[in-house]
Amino acid sequence: MTKNEIRQSLIESHYVMDVPVSTPEDTRQENVVRILEAAERLFKHYGYAKTTVADIAKDLGMSPANIYRFFGSKSEIHKALANRMLEASRAVAWENAKRAVSATERLRDHFLQQHRITVETLLHENKVHEMVVVAIEEQWSVIEDHIMQLRAIVAGLVEEGIAMGEFRAQDAELAAECLCDCTVTLCHPQIIAECLFETRRATPADVVDFALRALK
Amino acid sequence: MTKNEIRQSLIESHYVMDVPVSTPEDTRQENVVRILEAAERLFKHYGYAKTTVADIAKDLGMSPANIYRFFGSKSEIHKALANRMLEASRAVAWENAKRAVSATERLRDHFLQQHRITVETLLHENKVHEMVVVAIEEQWSVIEDHIMQLRAIVAGLVEEGIAMGEFRAQDAELAAECLCDCTVTLCHPQIIAECLFETRRATPADVVDFALRALK
Repeated sequence: MTKNEIRQSLIESHYVMDVPVSTPEDTRQENVVRILEAAERLFKHYGYAKTTVADIAKDLGMSPANIYRFFGSKSEIHKALANRMLEASRAVAWENAKRAVSATERLRDHFLQQHRITVETLLHENKVHEMVVVAIEEQWSVIEDHIMQLRAIVAGLVEEGIAMGEFRAQDAELAAECLCDCTVTLCHPQIIAECLFETRRATPADVVDFALRALK
Repeated sequence: MTKNEIRQSLIESHYVMDVPVSTPEDTRQENVVRILEAAERLFKHYGYAKTTVADIAKDLGMSPANIYRFFGSKSEIHKALANRMLEASRAVAWENAKRAVSATERLRDHFLQQHRITVETLLHENKVHEMVVVAIEEQWSVIEDHIMQLRAIVAGLVEEGIAMGEFRAQDAELAAECLCDCTVTLCHPQIIAECLFETRRATPADVVDFALRALK
């Protein structure tokens, strides 16, 4: 038993009246979403470090025990939140990849959309940046998995572009990895945060157009 | 008068016997180098945060007052050290840029050399990474200036390549900025530290060769 599991079972034994004996899957999902939404609001407002599971419970009029029915720890809530945000950006990427325009245009829009999402979602609010740093430092697998999935989408587009004669014949997976490397300044939250106030001539579109030429 | 200057003058008034009344420029330079070398050794061994100016003085058999003759604070020593390391990597870049080979070959070697220097100098020792993080966070101007100088070297090579017909006609400065952006995964110490253990197919040479195609 981990420290958190012990803590959870201790808390549950005190609040046993509060915990439903059986929860149908849809009610469970509703609760998960309610908890994530409250957590996101509080993390954004007070910061990740300063928000406790008790704060989230209080905000929802729940007991902490009820929260621990769904998430083993604050870090698990954070992980689920990060995953939800990353899923949303992958949904945008899939929508874009299905469009009936050239592979070049879809790749261009892919990187510009991911850039916009990173800037808007992650940097407009200072407190969210703190969450991102914690996520990068502690929950590497969620981020790593996201990077792999985006890279697969890009590889698919490169492959289509090769098949259509838009790009020269080349190893699509290797090219996709190089292309994602070349556009990392547009999508990496820490680099974006560092460079936000730098004086630059190259716009995100300039960098993407430059990198895409390498495929031709 | 800043806090450090007050501290410095207070210390000097106690150790006045220790401070030479007039120091010829070459003796001054010798002392600066001795202090920087001791500081580098101690920072690397004990870490930047744990090393004090008194430690550096003790290591050299000097009084702290003597150190404060040359550097106003520990942060100034750190800044001078960072500058010395960055100067060394710029010297490598200038040597490479002068070679009588194609611009493509010089650009390729430029990025691979900078990658090797970053990996070797900055990451082989854990304590040096701490110094880099402090440098990036606090002494942005030294780093920023270094980036601008490297970018100017790259722009010169792109311009030569355009003149020689190796690259298509294009805005050399804008292309150089895009090229430096595209190779940031090879030269940014924090990105390198994050990606060091990631499983990747693209080697540094793959990424550089890919990015260089965009110039053609």
